[in-house]
Amino acid sequence: MSAFVIPFWADLLAVGIGSLQGAMFAAQFRDRRLDLLGVAIIGIATGFGGGIIRDLLLNEVPKALQSNWYLPVATGAALIGMLLERLFSRLSKVITVLDALTIGLFGAIGTTAALSAGLPEVPAVFVGVLAAVGGSILRDLLLGMPIALMHVGSLYAVAALVGATTLVVLVNLGVAIPIAAIAGVVLTFTVRVLAVLFRWSLPEQRRL
Amino acid sequence: MSAFVIPFWADLLAVGIGSLQGAMFAAQFRDRRLDLLGVAIIGIATGFGGGIIRDLLLNEVPKALQSNWYLPVATGAALIGMLLERLFSRLSKVITVLDALTIGLFGAIGTTAALSAGLPEVPAVFVGVLAAVGGSILRDLLLGMPIALMHVGSLYAVAALVGATTLVVLVNLGVAIPIAAIAGVVLTFTVRVLAVLFRWSLPEQRRL
Amino acid sequence: MSAFVIPFWADLLAVGIGSLQGAMFAAQFRDRRLDLLGVAIIGIATGFGGGIIRDLLLNEVPKALQSNWYLPVATGAALIGMLLERLFSRLSKVITVLDALTIGLFGAIGTTAALSAGLPEVPAVFVGVLAAVGGSILRDLLLGMPIALMHVGSLYAVAALVGATTLVVLVNLGVAIPIAAIAGVVLTFTVRVLAVLFRWSLPEQRRL
Repeated sequence: MSAFVIPFWADLLAVGIGSLQGAMFAAQFRDRRLDLLGVAIIGIATGFGGGIIRDLLLNEVPKALQSNWYLPVATGAALIGMLLERLFSRLSKVITVLDALTIGLFGAIGTTAALSAGLPEVPAVFVGVLAAVGGSILRDLLLGMPIALMHVGSLYAVAALVGATTLVVLVNLGVAIPIAAIAGVVLTFTVRVLAVLFRWSLPEQRRL
Repeated sequence: MSAFVIPFWADLLAVGIGSLQGAMFAAQFRDRRLDLLGVAIIGIATGFGGGIIRDLLLNEVPKALQSNWYLPVATGAALIGMLLERLFSRLSKVITVLDALTIGLFGAIGTTAALSAGLPEVPAVFVGVLAAVGGSILRDLLLGMPIALMHVGSLYAVAALVGATTLVVLVNLGVAIPIAAIAGVVLTFTVRVLAVLFRWSLPEQRRL
Repeated sequence: MSAFVIPFWADLLAVGIGSLQGAMFAAQFRDRRLDLLGVAIIGIATGFGGGIIRDLLLNEVPKALQSNWYLPVATGAALIGMLLERLFSRLSKVITVLDALTIGLFGAIGTTAALSAGLPEVPAVFVGVLAAVGGSILRDLLLGMPIALMHVGSLYAVAALVGATTLVVLVNLGVAIPIAAIAGVVLTFTVRVLAVLFRWSLPEQRRL
């Protein structure tokens, strides 16, 4: 099964948005005395993390290391995110929308890459979700912060899970991969944006 | 050299016990506001972590991603661990016993997998120990806690080390792999259970 | 393109110095109650980390797991580092010099390994820098400390970046790999030592 191939510029754009966001996130913690390199590392980790986790699990050389373009884009986006943090923080709605698109794209790319590597359906969804949210997990680990998506908040990984599951179900029903992938991206995007708008969240952990 | 093959249900059971424990551990920290997904992530990481580290180091696609069964079992066990934490915490002796069996099994599987991948003896023991305790390391990293097994406590990794070393020595002496593996599991189990019973521990770090 | 092959004893020495340093670093935090195993783990992670990250990214079985020598050397160096911390801390200049040599060597090995695996220039530099500093990142993650090299300090990763970039540029200009590698090691070494001597650092993150 051939993987869902998105245009190279779209993949680069997704990495760039991830890096921009990672750097903006890091820029909020000015008391931590990150230097320029630290900001670049956080940016690269946020933009690359999901894709590298995906490719490690699929036992492939990470795609981001097979072209000269990814690292400059990620580094540049991280430094822009740091410099223009004040500007972008006023554009937070734009960023949320772009980020929802990014997790949708990363999720669809990861899920179809896993399917075409021959993984069964359930682990393919798992790899897709990790591809979507891995960058954010790595960002929080490197910053020594609690991992945001494990805590009560706005359906970030759940949006990726809904999209990846839909993609796999549609493919199993015989839908062509590009169409299933687009459906997955749209669903992830919609769930995430609605969750932010209406403050949907999962219940906190509880015991009987 | 063929790897020590344990029955599929025993491997699933080991993953399930790991996930149950990870979720029960996480459930103690109610002030952290983990949501349901966070508990599932901790459970999956604890149950899968060792096996994924093992397979990454051996340059193979993780076994846990080659079947549809592992993820539902890990997720289900994590949610049960969370819901029934109060019940299970009264059964802590049962859990300790099951967990000692689990690190024994994971250690034997990891060590023989490394041997059959052609690794020399010493790194085979290393991979076996990481396979046994990797889930617990990943759990602590994701929760932002000090990594339990690096601190003064009850011979957790040491038990795995004793079992894996015994296995490799026996195989080198010509003992058949299944028998060497069973000896390794039994030794790891015994050391761990006795260490908990008699509060054995390694000395704290010191300097001359 | 054949990788820059350094003598086996030099590679072992670099791993040993890394482990020694990691353990000495950990020994400063006596209130954390690390046990002997914890110190060994930190030592092994610091000495091995960069090489393992390099080989995972290049989709190869880690070199450190292909010989029986690396683990005993790393463990031994870690325990010596712990026991003799007081002695070594008076030799801190010697250690800084040896460590500058180590990041130079790891950087050159990583960069040429990436080039010979067929990676383009920019990701080859990235892999080289990660190979040089990955151990230090892993050490800080496992200790639950802020990651030193992301914060304002003395050009640690930058030294590796300068050396790796020089190596790749020289190779592209047609210089033989051994000579380019030596140039890379010398430059990394020089930048790092001068940065410590004259307290050079990158500027802190800022915004417009």
